[in-house]
This record gives sequence, C-alpha cells and structure tokens, in this order.
Amino acid sequence: MMRPPQFPPLLSGLNVAGRDPFAAARQTAAQGCDAGLILYDLSGDLRAALICAPEVPLAQAVAMLPLCGVGVQNALGALAPPEVPVHLDWNGAIRVNGGRCGALHIAASTHEPDQIPDWLVVGVTLQFEATTQDTGDTPDETALYSEGCGDLRPQDLLESWARHTLTGLHRWEEDGMPPLHRDWAGLLHGIGQPITQSGQTGTFLGVDENLGMLLKSGDTTHLIPLTTLLEA
Amino acid sequence: MMRPPQFPPLLSGLNVAGRDPFAAARQTAAQGCDAGLILYDLSGDLRAALICAPEVPLAQAVAMLPLCGVGVQNALGALAPPEVPVHLDWNGAIRVNGGRCGALHIAASTHEPDQIPDWLVVGVTLQFEATTQDTGDTPDETALYSEGCGDLRPQDLLESWARHTLTGLHRWEEDGMPPLHRDWAGLLHGIGQPITQSGQTGTFLGVDENLGMLLKSGDTTHLIPLTTLLEA
Repeated sequence: MMRPPQFPPLLSGLNVAGRDPFAAARQTAAQGCDAGLILYDLSGDLRAALICAPEVPLAQAVAMLPLCGVGVQNALGALAPPEVPVHLDWNGAIRVNGGRCGALHIAASTHEPDQIPDWLVVGVTLQFEATTQDTGDTPDETALYSEGCGDLRPQDLLESWARHTLTGLHRWEEDGMPPLHRDWAGLLHGIGQPITQSGQTGTFLGVDENLGMLLKSGDTTHLIPLTTLLEA
Repeated sequence: MMRPPQFPPLLSGLNVAGRDPFAAARQTAAQGCDAGLILYDLSGDLRAALICAPEVPLAQAVAMLPLCGVGVQNALGALAPPEVPVHLDWNGAIRVNGGRCGALHIAASTHEPDQIPDWLVVGVTLQFEATTQDTGDTPDETALYSEGCGDLRPQDLLESWARHTLTGLHRWEEDGMPPLHRDWAGLLHGIGQPITQSGQTGTFLGVDENLGMLLKSGDTTHLIPLTTLLEA
C-alpha cells in the first residue's frame, strides 16, 4: 500500500482515478469547494488539476496557466536527470527534449476578461509511458520514460509540482507579473520562430506584460491574450 | 468479464485505461498508425479519442470536431431517455439539460490551415458520475447519472458514438459541409446570445460555411475559425 500524496499547507488532494481530473475539478469547483484542492489520477501517467478561487479579474488570473507551467519545469528540474531539457509552449504544451510530453489546460467559470471568476481550474498532464516502443529519433510527441526519466514516479512529480506551484503563487501575489514573466519567457519554446496560434500565423516575438503572445505578421504585431486558451 | 467494445468496420479500439486517451492518441498518431483507431478509458467516465488521417487541408479537416459532436448527440439521442436534451457549444462543450457534461477536443500535427495534416485527433469526454452529491438545481456542470441517465454505460455510449460518427464521416465525404452545417447548427447552444470566445465578446450569430463562429460586436462581424480550437 503506497502512502497517499503529501501536499503543502493550503493545498489538499483528492484521488479521482478513473476520471478525468480536469473535468472532475471543473465540476467540483462549479458545485462549490475550497480553493487549493488538487484532483489527481496517478494510475498511469500524471494527470492532475488545481482548483483556484481568483481574487483578480480573469485577464490577470489566467496567469495561473504559465505559473503552473513554471511549476512543472521546476519539479522536473528537481527530479529528472539534469541533462533533460524542459520547455513550455505559450499555448500550454510541455516539451521534454523538444518533444511534446504533456500539456497544461485552463478553464474558468466565465470567459469575460473583466470579471473575477468564481473558480478557475488548471490541469496538467504528463506522459510517462510511450504508447508504443517505436518512438523514433525526433518524434513530435514523447514520454518521460523514453527521455531518460525511468526513475520518476507520477506521485513524486505531483508532490513536487504542488510545492513549486504554491511557491510561485505566493511570489505572484507579492511581486505580481514581472518575476513570472521573466521565468516563463526564459522557458518558452519557439520565440523568434514562425508559429500559428489561434488561426493567426507570424513570428513569435515574445509575451506582453499580461503574458499574451506577441505575434508579428507582416507589418502588424498581434496580441493574443491568454484568455484565448480557456477551454470549453 | 465484460466483452470488449465492438466497433464498425474501418474503426478499431485500444484500451488505454489509466492514461489520457486524447494524449495517448496524439502520441500514437505522431509515431505513425492506421487511421480509425479509437483509444478509450471506460474505467469511470467515458474518455475516448479517434485518430484520423485527413485528406483535406486543416481548415476543412477541423470539421471533425463538430462531426464527432453530432455523433455524441446522436448516440445520446439513441440511448438516453427521450426527455434529456443534448446541445453542443461551438467550442466543443457538450451540454445535457443545459449543464456542461463533457467536451470535445481537437489536435493535429500542424496548426497551418492550408496544410493537410499528417494526423488529427478528436477526443471526447462525458461525465457519468457527479463528483459530489450536491449538484443543485441549475449547475454550470453536470453528469449523466444526475440527469436521468442512470442506465447508461460508458461502453454502450462509446460503441454508439463510433457508429454514428462513422456514418457522419461517410456523409461528409460524399456530401461535404452542408448536411453537417445543418445538423450542427440545429444543436448549437447560445445562437443569438452574448458570448465570449477566443478573447472576443459579442453576439453569436451562427456559423459560416467552414463552421467558423460568426460573432457580431458593434458594427463588426468577426469570423473565428474552428482552427482556433486546436489544442497545444
């Protein structure tokens, strides 16, 4: 019998194995629950979702997606072999050795940027096992056990992610966007390269002060807000 | 011992219980596999993902999302009590009795609208069990077992969804967008109402010939393409 995952103060866990933790978290949040609950399924890959009760309007609160992403990078940095590079796509994908190895997802009670949402949920998935043995040399998609992380366990990563995310949350509440902007920008995949996002194609210049994507196409620079990533 | 799910010719199944079928399908597709594979986890809610190999550019191929959505409505229409209304949000949410009860997700090997993708994956999740007993009268989120569908089993719904989706696929290949446009428009939630999608707020007028959202704000009507919904 394994011990259940341990979470830092202010966070608590709920095992929802067999269900989609992201969907279950949305449902739980809509029915009313305390913020700081992490729903998880550790039965294969890592799948978890954190319920938040933001105190700021949605346009700022969506920063929880990159904040949780930096938490994933910190957790992998602490637990994975040092030679395994971890990067984040603006749109939530998590890359290990350049391959897509998981993703962050975000949903909220409202899609109105100026409203303070009743709840906001950030989900994280990390693939541990490759679906087949035939992974090739430069696959689009990868899994941790194919990238030299054979000693990693989903539960350890969940606990580490929760701790690093809570630390990031405290810093965000005290110091605002600048430290998060700096940390995230340093991990972002594809800056300076051509990209298609939300139906627009251009060069990914970087992120603005609210962490929106700056996309230059021709003479125009578009700003794609993070709220674009809110899921149905 | 339950019999494994049965699929119609051209489709096949792979049980990935404990993993996220949508993530597993992307990984499997990127490594190369035959189109028509459905990965599924029936251990709690219904979670499944269909791998496609489109023959048309991404801008048209993303019609697989509404096509699979109409398949969900057809399957629920066949199996759920007749008084249970099912609607679809443009962005992939599945509504039962007005509450969000699941969602469709889409990902592809490219985000370039003009490219024919190597692969495209549509995922579907349907919540069967409510996370808590306290569902309230008009919750934002709901579950099938809270909506009078106590006799439904995830496996039956998976099989019916596969059959109806294959039928829709054949019709789409033969007759193109018009029948799909008509079927989907008749099921769409929120037409004529205010909505925020992809960071833009306005009135949801309907969908164009490629099933993009027509969103009127002030004197301008925006077209939000379905490719906007492609996941990281």
